[in-house]
This record gives sequence, C-alpha cells and structure tokens, in this order.
Amino acid sequence: MRILLTNDDGIQSKGIVVLAEYLSEKYEVFVVAPDTERSGTGHSITIHVPLWMKKVFIKEGIVAYATTGTPADCVKLGYNVVMKRNVDLVISGINKGPNLGMDILYSGTVSGALEGAMLGIPSLAVSSASFDAPDFEGAARFLVEFLEEFDFSLLEPFTALNINIPTGEIKGWKITRQSKRRWNDFFEERVSPFGERYYWMTGEVLEDDEREDVDYKVVREGYVSVTPISPFLTNERCYVVLKEVYPGCTG
Amino acid sequence: MRILLTNDDGIQSKGIVVLAEYLSEKYEVFVVAPDTERSGTGHSITIHVPLWMKKVFIKEGIVAYATTGTPADCVKLGYNVVMKRNVDLVISGINKGPNLGMDILYSGTVSGALEGAMLGIPSLAVSSASFDAPDFEGAARFLVEFLEEFDFSLLEPFTALNINIPTGEIKGWKITRQSKRRWNDFFEERVSPFGERYYWMTGEVLEDDEREDVDYKVVREGYVSVTPISPFLTNERCYVVLKEVYPGCTG
Repeated sequence: MRILLTNDDGIQSKGIVVLAEYLSEKYEVFVVAPDTERSGTGHSITIHVPLWMKKVFIKEGIVAYATTGTPADCVKLGYNVVMKRNVDLVISGINKGPNLGMDILYSGTVSGALEGAMLGIPSLAVSSASFDAPDFEGAARFLVEFLEEFDFSLLEPFTALNINIPTGEIKGWKITRQSKRRWNDFFEERVSPFGERYYWMTGEVLEDDEREDVDYKVVREGYVSVTPISPFLTNERCYVVLKEVYPGCTG
Repeated sequence: MRILLTNDDGIQSKGIVVLAEYLSEKYEVFVVAPDTERSGTGHSITIHVPLWMKKVFIKEGIVAYATTGTPADCVKLGYNVVMKRNVDLVISGINKGPNLGMDILYSGTVSGALEGAMLGIPSLAVSSASFDAPDFEGAARFLVEFLEEFDFSLLEPFTALNINIPTGEIKGWKITRQSKRRWNDFFEERVSPFGERYYWMTGEVLEDDEREDVDYKVVREGYVSVTPISPFLTNERCYVVLKEVYPGCTG
C-alpha cells in the first residue's frame, strides 16, 4: 500500500515524523508536507504564486518533501508530481490537538484529508485530541491497528474519515457525527507603540450538541471518534423544505 | 436591516463596491473586507498574528474597514468589533467568477458566508458566474430583488445560501444542490534562473454530475442557482452504513 502523508503542523513536527516511522514498517510512505506550520489554513490553496518542493530526510526508506504550500496543495502535489497518481491512501496528521465540530472547517489537517477524498482516494485526518500533552506514539499505534481493522470498501467515493484519538487509555473506537461544537469569539483590542489599534482573536468553546454520538462527547469518554465526512455542504433537510416552497423557476 | 458585507477579492474590487452601493439605498451597510485579494483562501483564519483594521471610504453613509485578515476573519471582526453583535444578514461578494461544486471548499467568498452561518446569522455568498466578463450591476440588481422575495425564516440555523448569478438575461432562480463539479489538476514544472524546480498548478474542470438540479447545470441554462449549505460535513448515508457494520465500541 502506497500512503501519501501530509499535515498542517509542518514537516518538522513530531506528529508527522512519528506517524511516518510507524507506517513505514508496513507500507510505502511518501511525505509531502508544508515547510512551516499552517494551522488554521482551512482548505486554502495557492493559486497566484508557484509552489516549491524540497527533498528532506526523515528516515531511510521514506521519500519526503517540504513544500511552500498548504496541506491541500501538498496533497495535490504529492498525488500528481511525487507519486504520479498512484496513491492508495492519504493520511493527514497526526495533528497536535483535536479537530472536532465546526473547527474542522478551519483545520488544515482535515482539509488535507478532504482534498484526498476529492481526488477519489480513501483519506484520513488524524488528531491527538490534546493540545497540551498530545500522545503521538499512542495515536500512531492506534492508527496502525485501525488500518488493519477497518473495511475501507465501505467508504463512499469522496468520503474521508476524521479521526480524533484521546490521550491516556483508549477504550476502543466509535463511528460518530460531526458535532455543532463551535467558538464564541472575543477580540482583545491593543494599541501598538505607534498608536494603531490591533486585535487578537480569542474565545471560549461552546459544547451544546444534544445528540449522543457526536465527536467531542465520544472523545471525552475515552473513545476514538471516527466521523465519515465529505466536501458536500448542501443542507439536504433545508433543500427539501426550500424545494417545496420554491419548486420551479422563481422570480 | 443591518448588513455585514465581505468578500475575498479585496475591499477595492468592483464587486463589493457595486453591491455596497445598491444595498445602501435600502439597508444599513457595514463593509469589513480584506485589504487585498484573498481568492482560494478557503475557510482559513488568522491565529498566530493579530488582525489590523483600517477605516476606508467607499461612499457617504457606508461604514467600511479594510483588514489584514481572511474573509472568515472579516466576518468575525465585523460581527464582534464593528457591529457589536447586532447583525441581521451577512453577504459575501459579489465574487468575480462562479463558486460551484467542490470549488466552494476553496472559496474565500463562500467561507465568509459559512462563517456568518456558523455565528447563527442568515448569510449569503454571491458570485457573478463569469471570470472574463462578470456583470456586477446585473448581479446586484438581482440580489436586491431576491432579498425582498426570499423567505429567510425557512433557513435552518447554521445554513447559508450559495448564490451564483449568470451573466446576460436571467431567467429566474432555482433551488439547487452543490454538484460534484471538481478539477483534474495538472502541474507545470519550471526551472528558476538559479536551477531550482517549481510548479504552477493548472487543470481542467470535470462536470460529470448525473443529477438535474445541481448548481452548474442551472447556471448554464441561464438561471440563478441558490444552494442551501451548512458547515456540517458528516456523510449521513455513509454514517448509517458504517454504524450498521460497527454499531458500538470497536477495537
């Protein structure tokens, strides 16, 4: 199996290096990742400047390139240029910190996996669900087992898995839905030495989803959360309602 | 009605200026938009550096700020700082060129509207569906009428509308689904004067959706496409299938 590995914490981050090492014991691993951190870049791509790739060394037997692009760019470059469209699986991670609820829209890591799905390749986003004390070794061990256990033929085309792995003892994994976990933003206003105002974005998390099987609740209970996600944003319930009220051409 | 206006083409672009002028005849308009073009930034946000805002002049009676952030940042800043959380509608656009199919994941314009939806505000992304000859006046006229016609109480929480307006004669508007329209990427390899290789991303569009009521087909037929979209990526069909095979805790 030929695996394309990317992330948004950058190619020098521990999460991707640990995962590359674990995976390379069983699989052919190609790392194509951003040269510096790209957290919060969402699904951005580079369109007005060209992309650069530089060969880097991670470990004997692992092909690795640092790029000037985003995670989505890296997956496109890895697929088309480095691996010549011969990719069995895309993995994005291991991210430092969780990717849960609406945060997955902001996440470069999740967008890397979504880009893989958009190319028609089975894809995973993998996160160690702790910012302060991520457990990359534990997450990598889990993932290697999961790859053996999970039946990838069940995945629809254009579908990725968003996997969040708790730290500490792992009780097992559960299929979940993306929650409506989101942020209540605050902006802290400051004044520069030159008298100009600027703003730091901070905030508090809102965890008010009523449903049981949603990502953050399962992780909090010590299970790995596995959410099937797709790049299709149509709100189907709302589509049906609107189509009833506005069935044909209007206006 | 207090409207927050943003875009990804930048505050100096014709699309947002024309729309601000049209809307300001009926509504209170606040423009908070990127200081330069941010096409292809997707749902990226600024987390490691602070954000700057500068008051700019568009027209008497319109409050306008240029920011160093992305469209999603602009919506957060506009909502929290400029408009003090008193926003009735978020509009992102008018974008130069269409936002159809999977492209909406890459689009800063659509992400601006999604960010509004994530804040619980009815939100619209608006695009003139021609790169070469966008018709901002025609699109703005359509939008002003649409705001009177459309029943916003039908929108679920956390739902935006992605609106693509064809140029030329408009036959009316139709409720649509996001298509699987996507790109077959190519990379053109070049060598710098210093002997280093770099890559330009190009590609061709794939339009093979079998369904009738999808965004790009409706636009091609001369109708405005109106797609209800949400930041929830769970593939519900796949969730049901996986939950049947893996009902409880596994592993």
